[in-house]
Amino acid sequence: MDVYEAIYRRRDVRRFRPDPVPDTVLRRILEAAHHAGSVGLMQPWNFIIVRRPDVRQAIFRDFEERNRRAASHYEGERRVLYDSLKLQGILDAPLNIAVTCDRGRGGPHVLGRDSVIDTDIHSTCCAVQNLWLAARAEGVGVGWVSIIDPASVGGLLGLPEGVVLVAYLCVGYPTEFEDGPMLERVGWSRRLPLRDLVFEDSWGRPGDDLFREVP
Amino acid sequence: MDVYEAIYRRRDVRRFRPDPVPDTVLRRILEAAHHAGSVGLMQPWNFIIVRRPDVRQAIFRDFEERNRRAASHYEGERRVLYDSLKLQGILDAPLNIAVTCDRGRGGPHVLGRDSVIDTDIHSTCCAVQNLWLAARAEGVGVGWVSIIDPASVGGLLGLPEGVVLVAYLCVGYPTEFEDGPMLERVGWSRRLPLRDLVFEDSWGRPGDDLFREVP
Repeated sequence: MDVYEAIYRRRDVRRFRPDPVPDTVLRRILEAAHHAGSVGLMQPWNFIIVRRPDVRQAIFRDFEERNRRAASHYEGERRVLYDSLKLQGILDAPLNIAVTCDRGRGGPHVLGRDSVIDTDIHSTCCAVQNLWLAARAEGVGVGWVSIIDPASVGGLLGLPEGVVLVAYLCVGYPTEFEDGPMLERVGWSRRLPLRDLVFEDSWGRPGDDLFREVP
Repeated sequence: MDVYEAIYRRRDVRRFRPDPVPDTVLRRILEAAHHAGSVGLMQPWNFIIVRRPDVRQAIFRDFEERNRRAASHYEGERRVLYDSLKLQGILDAPLNIAVTCDRGRGGPHVLGRDSVIDTDIHSTCCAVQNLWLAARAEGVGVGWVSIIDPASVGGLLGLPEGVVLVAYLCVGYPTEFEDGPMLERVGWSRRLPLRDLVFEDSWGRPGDDLFREVP
């Protein structure tokens, strides 16, 4: 699949078919993640394939608890809409993948990781995006569950000191790839025009030159 | 370009030809970045296209200062090798792009951004990876300069309170796309085997099942 097609047709998927993802496909997706750039070639990531029902049930309970708190930020119609949204597929997906960052990998000083210590987290997020796009090219859906407590889930996964959970992903064949983001379709939010997000040389100076040929 | 080809042939580029990147190409690359997923469709990113020589000179001076400190972590042969590496192309590239994250965008509570406040930073990194891959498909090189002080550079770019610099990128046509990571080629570091990075159900439990067909 063309890289632009993968980028534009990638979705955050929460509804999955139960069909398993073949090992060959899963390896290709993980290898793509592993080929992200990383600061100083640190490769701080690990991938924990989570299939065991009891582990996933425990993680799902953490989601439920955190989601009750998150929901309390909304009232009235917005709350009704919030409660109607499906925000994860932890138990429906045939597998989950926890992507972690080992903050000590590569020794006490990693080339390029000096003034910005979180560059290892940034690299790990780049790996997640590679994973997401490769999965899309394979027809596999990925949903990033952000409404969990990383420390609790990290405990359930046995992460050692110094290793943090960055992304908890639900992975499998989706019931469908929708045309656009779910939050746009249900009227929760909308995509901003790119033109409003581009500046030239300093914050607030419109990037009009770049869009002068665009109607 | 196929998404896997873009992923495997993407490089962190530090040597650029001076040829300008056409506006149409730059818009496609930025639009690809803007189509990353983001927590609650927050789209916390902005893109500052930096072309002005005086701004880039000031940012280059910040790099030089930070790099002197970073270099002091190495001694002997390792220091000689470190000093020989070209780690940025701030002045050589025809343009730089600062990718920022507005931590207050979308109001006081953003759907999905609750227990993990840094999900906005994670989303911004996913946008950077989209940008990087789209650029690769266009034959455009990108180098992420991590050896800068984000607060100083943010000041030079006039970032307001609540907006942080996530990635400072050098962008342009490269002298070449090398076959593999520069740090591997010069013997600084090497790629880890994926097999060693995959676990099953909990940290430390080898993911051998996934690799059983692989020699």
